[in-house]
Amino acid sequence: MELRAILSHVDHTLLKQDATWEQIRTIVDEGIAYGTASVCIPASYVQQAAEYAGGRVPICTVIGFPNGYSTTAAKCFEAADAIKNGAAEIDMVVNLGWVKDGKYDDVLAEIKAVKAACGDKLLKVIIETCLLTQEEKIKMCEVLAQSGAEYIKTSTGFSTGGATFQDVALLRQHCPPSVKVKAAGGIASLADAEKFLSLGADRLGTSRIVALAKQQGV
Amino acid sequence: MELRAILSHVDHTLLKQDATWEQIRTIVDEGIAYGTASVCIPASYVQQAAEYAGGRVPICTVIGFPNGYSTTAAKCFEAADAIKNGAAEIDMVVNLGWVKDGKYDDVLAEIKAVKAACGDKLLKVIIETCLLTQEEKIKMCEVLAQSGAEYIKTSTGFSTGGATFQDVALLRQHCPPSVKVKAAGGIASLADAEKFLSLGADRLGTSRIVALAKQQGV
Repeated sequence: MELRAILSHVDHTLLKQDATWEQIRTIVDEGIAYGTASVCIPASYVQQAAEYAGGRVPICTVIGFPNGYSTTAAKCFEAADAIKNGAAEIDMVVNLGWVKDGKYDDVLAEIKAVKAACGDKLLKVIIETCLLTQEEKIKMCEVLAQSGAEYIKTSTGFSTGGATFQDVALLRQHCPPSVKVKAAGGIASLADAEKFLSLGADRLGTSRIVALAKQQGV
Repeated sequence: MELRAILSHVDHTLLKQDATWEQIRTIVDEGIAYGTASVCIPASYVQQAAEYAGGRVPICTVIGFPNGYSTTAAKCFEAADAIKNGAAEIDMVVNLGWVKDGKYDDVLAEIKAVKAACGDKLLKVIIETCLLTQEEKIKMCEVLAQSGAEYIKTSTGFSTGGATFQDVALLRQHCPPSVKVKAAGGIASLADAEKFLSLGADRLGTSRIVALAKQQGV
């Protein structure tokens, strides 16, 4: 697979706690230069980044992130606020305590409410696979199928593990074609990136693929 | 120091990503039984916990947590939402990218805005000491002094380190008496708890002191 084709599936991501504007601007510059699908950055930088990017790369941000246990009202406010500030894509974290308690109706209602707040902007739903049983992962695919969200996403990158080949294959198998798959967390090589895409991932959340492209002088 | 006296300074805390209601209810029961200063729990459980506690223990929650990079508008919404749901205390995380960029005026304005949303409820401000230089920690004490917030707090417990004796002593030294100090993250023994209190901490964020009290049959 051509490196440029891989890059077109990358959400070029910087979500560390103390990221500065200079670091975020570099991510935006790189996203534009390498033709990534989006740049994924903290909400407090969305407005500045959207103005700086001027439409040359879509701005993605995160809400209810990374722990997923803020209220539904807060998640909806965050989504609407981010879109008002210029975000084109929203990555939310599900309420994992509710998943563990089997409260899937509440999980679904929350995703639907956030999707309503997103309107026609893309919503990706992080299920944090590293904390879920096989049964819970499959159940979440069923929830996503009914939710109106565009993507199911494996991981925040802040918990005990990132995307695995098995999980991406499992999510692709159990979600309808209308729900795309985003693999995130720990994607570190071009071989891994290609493998995730071949298993059915449509987006890759990582900063390292752009770093590898820079090393290769692409 | 008497164990009961130590417990009266503890924010009995459960903030793991997939905490279930049964686990949260246990924390509330223990907070009541051991006379802790508060119980500190995820925002999505505040309403249920406040109804369950019925005023027998104050409910504390976290906002902009743990990464601190949501927008000021989102943090204010979260605070007001949590208080509406029954929270008596709010622990917020500062925008650490702004601290690193030296944008202390923006950091102060954000804390003041959240404090306005909190009204007469307590606001604790997490500065994430493990990510800051000595100079930044002292600068944040000066910011806190002007903010109206009741507490400066060392750590989220989700970053690279928790409270240290040196940091608690430093914050106590550089904050005015109107700003109390909360030590959090990794407080694991009664000796440590006593040491933090003797160095000037007024609150301790931990779940382990109650666990030790249970072991001792207090």
